[in-house]
Amino acid sequence: MENRVRVLIDCQDSKGLVYHISKVFYDRGLNIDTNREFVDKERGKFFMRTVVTGEFDAEELRDELVSVVPDNAHVRVIVPKSKKIVLMATKESHCLGDILIRWAAGELEADIEAVISNRDNLRDLTCRFDIPFLHISSDDKEREAHEKEVLEVLNGLEFDYIVLAKYMRILSADFVHHYPEQIINIHHSFLPAFIGANPYKQAHSRGVKIIGATAHFVTTDLDEGPIISQDVIPVNHRLEWRDMQRAGRDVEKIVLARALSLVLNDRVFVNDNKTIVF
Amino acid sequence: MENRVRVLIDCQDSKGLVYHISKVFYDRGLNIDTNREFVDKERGKFFMRTVVTGEFDAEELRDELVSVVPDNAHVRVIVPKSKKIVLMATKESHCLGDILIRWAAGELEADIEAVISNRDNLRDLTCRFDIPFLHISSDDKEREAHEKEVLEVLNGLEFDYIVLAKYMRILSADFVHHYPEQIINIHHSFLPAFIGANPYKQAHSRGVKIIGATAHFVTTDLDEGPIISQDVIPVNHRLEWRDMQRAGRDVEKIVLARALSLVLNDRVFVNDNKTIVF
Amino acid sequence: MENRVRVLIDCQDSKGLVYHISKVFYDRGLNIDTNREFVDKERGKFFMRTVVTGEFDAEELRDELVSVVPDNAHVRVIVPKSKKIVLMATKESHCLGDILIRWAAGELEADIEAVISNRDNLRDLTCRFDIPFLHISSDDKEREAHEKEVLEVLNGLEFDYIVLAKYMRILSADFVHHYPEQIINIHHSFLPAFIGANPYKQAHSRGVKIIGATAHFVTTDLDEGPIISQDVIPVNHRLEWRDMQRAGRDVEKIVLARALSLVLNDRVFVNDNKTIVF
Amino acid sequence: MENRVRVLIDCQDSKGLVYHISKVFYDRGLNIDTNREFVDKERGKFFMRTVVTGEFDAEELRDELVSVVPDNAHVRVIVPKSKKIVLMATKESHCLGDILIRWAAGELEADIEAVISNRDNLRDLTCRFDIPFLHISSDDKEREAHEKEVLEVLNGLEFDYIVLAKYMRILSADFVHHYPEQIINIHHSFLPAFIGANPYKQAHSRGVKIIGATAHFVTTDLDEGPIISQDVIPVNHRLEWRDMQRAGRDVEKIVLARALSLVLNDRVFVNDNKTIVF
Repeated sequence: MENRVRVLIDCQDSKGLVYHISKVFYDRGLNIDTNREFVDKERGKFFMRTVVTGEFDAEELRDELVSVVPDNAHVRVIVPKSKKIVLMATKESHCLGDILIRWAAGELEADIEAVISNRDNLRDLTCRFDIPFLHISSDDKEREAHEKEVLEVLNGLEFDYIVLAKYMRILSADFVHHYPEQIINIHHSFLPAFIGANPYKQAHSRGVKIIGATAHFVTTDLDEGPIISQDVIPVNHRLEWRDMQRAGRDVEKIVLARALSLVLNDRVFVNDNKTIVF
Repeated sequence: MENRVRVLIDCQDSKGLVYHISKVFYDRGLNIDTNREFVDKERGKFFMRTVVTGEFDAEELRDELVSVVPDNAHVRVIVPKSKKIVLMATKESHCLGDILIRWAAGELEADIEAVISNRDNLRDLTCRFDIPFLHISSDDKEREAHEKEVLEVLNGLEFDYIVLAKYMRILSADFVHHYPEQIINIHHSFLPAFIGANPYKQAHSRGVKIIGATAHFVTTDLDEGPIISQDVIPVNHRLEWRDMQRAGRDVEKIVLARALSLVLNDRVFVNDNKTIVF
Repeated sequence: MENRVRVLIDCQDSKGLVYHISKVFYDRGLNIDTNREFVDKERGKFFMRTVVTGEFDAEELRDELVSVVPDNAHVRVIVPKSKKIVLMATKESHCLGDILIRWAAGELEADIEAVISNRDNLRDLTCRFDIPFLHISSDDKEREAHEKEVLEVLNGLEFDYIVLAKYMRILSADFVHHYPEQIINIHHSFLPAFIGANPYKQAHSRGVKIIGATAHFVTTDLDEGPIISQDVIPVNHRLEWRDMQRAGRDVEKIVLARALSLVLNDRVFVNDNKTIVF
Repeated sequence: MENRVRVLIDCQDSKGLVYHISKVFYDRGLNIDTNREFVDKERGKFFMRTVVTGEFDAEELRDELVSVVPDNAHVRVIVPKSKKIVLMATKESHCLGDILIRWAAGELEADIEAVISNRDNLRDLTCRFDIPFLHISSDDKEREAHEKEVLEVLNGLEFDYIVLAKYMRILSADFVHHYPEQIINIHHSFLPAFIGANPYKQAHSRGVKIIGATAHFVTTDLDEGPIISQDVIPVNHRLEWRDMQRAGRDVEKIVLARALSLVLNDRVFVNDNKTIVF
């Protein structure tokens, strides 16, 4: 059966890894379609992403690869298919809308299981695309109580990633622990500049000449998770902070979409607090 | 006598300023070559930069302009000519070299009075261009004592601006007070990200996907002065921090050169902690 | 009656224009909110865009302005309000979708009268937003016949601008003459590079390291109209032309949206084959 | 003897190349420091650049690699060391000066054998750095006669690359044939836009909103050689073509320096009319 898989390996670095791994592919007569490696010398870690084609059983291939790499290696043999995502948003529609348009065009490489929001005003947009919209109001609720409701809803869904498409509530460490390396956020500044609330106001007040956006995995440290993608645009003294916000939205949505595409294509390794992007 | 001047006005905003100012130009039969204005509504401040040509006495023109704008207005009528600058550097040559090359090509719009350094290793480069190199060692000296020596040397020089072309010592508030809006620094990060020591190490450690540089006026708050110019370049996981430093040098020198050119062309107004750049 | 208008003036350059115009504003007690001017010395043309507020009748203000500027001046006093646009597209949905999302969020500054397409596959997307979708098939038709049908439909609509959101048919000179400075196109290359068919294939074949997109007014010279906005992204040898196309779509939609916003805000003057963008 | 080499292989693609090559490294106990591969499927070509360290004889390693790759493979085992370059320029100093500053700082990874110019005005700058300046006037000479003189001088020099640092004469096919993939040029436009004379005038006349520069290998087709590096900057209607030229110079010198660094680090493969840059 002709097959095509993404092989992702990260492990302790050691001599001969490329040889041992490529020998597995060669012995089975597989074709290497693309191959990228990286060694983090500081941490002594090896990362590899290879797309191989040929006749093989994915499970067997994985077992054989595990047998030639160091113990505790993380070996994935992934058959490309649409992943499942849940979107969380609050009231701004630009990131959500951008993802919906890509999904409707068949360009997202993911199915959207649901849109969850603590407000109700994105219901119309979501429903235009026949995606379930779940309003879990955060009004008059403690963070813990609200998150408990969200977790209950999430428990009833099947998904690979949660995408925070301008979800404007801070997630507790407890919440984040449920989904390690599974939550992707878009932050409306060029991190680590302007951590925290209203980065555009901060940027305007500081008088910067460039603003940006950052897509990152969410960890328990606010705005400190591994960065996947960033981009910037020039600004000048004529822009009020609301003008910066408006201009910044285009950067936010493109940066989030890029990061999401990279993740959905299994191109991103997390390496401590950083990412390797192939 | 045919004349060409840059008129710079900043004052409290009030109705009719453009009318009153342009009337002065009109009544004298002057041509407006270029004209740019900006009103900072938050602070109620008006900024205008006009290049006018015609037959007039600059001093008289200034007096007349003062008479039509609010009290305490800051009115400058500047005859374009080469300004004088002093460069301060430590050991890296890329910013200094870039400025020297521009100067040698007649493209700097400034005369370089001297290069002052706390180290001796840029002497050769500076002397290749027949510019005085003044080594004021900071070894075994308290900041205060060292700055006193530098100030003494500066007192013997005539200049409009001090350009910190990778001068790696922090200037005291006392020093800075001598030269308000006259010291231009290049910081090797996209401020306000990575304030303080070794921004490239910080950037590498944080795993950012973009690095940058910031040229700003020096105030008594370290790395907090009004930003004149910024730019960035993409980086990725393959770059060690020294690679980032190397790549960053090209951004640093271009950003500093751009800022310096803007200042030398009287295109920059300081507006509290921000700049207006025309 | 408190009013706020955009005053746009373009005319032959002459001495005292700023004075005469600002005098009109001053005599009527109007506030200048923002003001930008430009003189094209090569062509001896003056351009000015001023936002003024105060109590006045727009018609009267216009008449008075006309009386102080040269004959044949083009003077517009525009009360800001949503303009009307018609979108034309073929089969790609990214530009159309991006505009629809902005419109649904109330951020477009325009009402979309209709989407016209020579294909039927964008019907679903358009109808999700309750916008009329008009399919005018181009199959088995001469250009002239097809355009005649389109013109008939357009004649029944009221609109300020036609936005070609990836409309993949070339418009005849005859068609374009009906809508001077009213048709905005997005071209999928960094013009004037890669004029003509399939710019991404051309870019891939040429091995460029950067690709881009160009929004421009449509004139009778294909791909030669006045450029409003451009942007680029880096690419490398690993991208097939279809990868470039995919990456390029994000640039296309952002560049078109930026150009459209500038036009809708009356920030763009056409100056022969170029634009002045304030 | 501990060694560190760059292994560059380009050959017809075939199954098992990575395995066979990495086996050579593994059998000899070598460490792979970095490794990058690319397969051009259109042309069926394989490219690989690996940095390996360990105890080995470079010549023997090369022979062994040749024995495992297809016939006609191009296998290079390069011991990193300063390459030798000759600079050619005409009258603008920014690119030449930038390279000289890097060289003087020990950051160029190349020795400059000589600067050759058809004019005399860069003599002073070159001599400031104690580099031989060879003036070969092109005045009153046919191209052929002038090139013959230049070739004679080049024949007396030893070098790896010729860098055209704003050399403003077109080289004949005959000249270029002497130095295949050895001549690097900086073109002052974002190729393929504005091929030919005075790209800044062309860019100004066309009203583009972005200008750029392109570094490429010189082939017999003017401005059509394989592109190594490109970059751009935004411009607007306020810039005269001379302003564009001034602003463009910063892009030119940085793009040329980047391309030169890539070439000197053996990171560039030529693949027909394109480059692979690792």
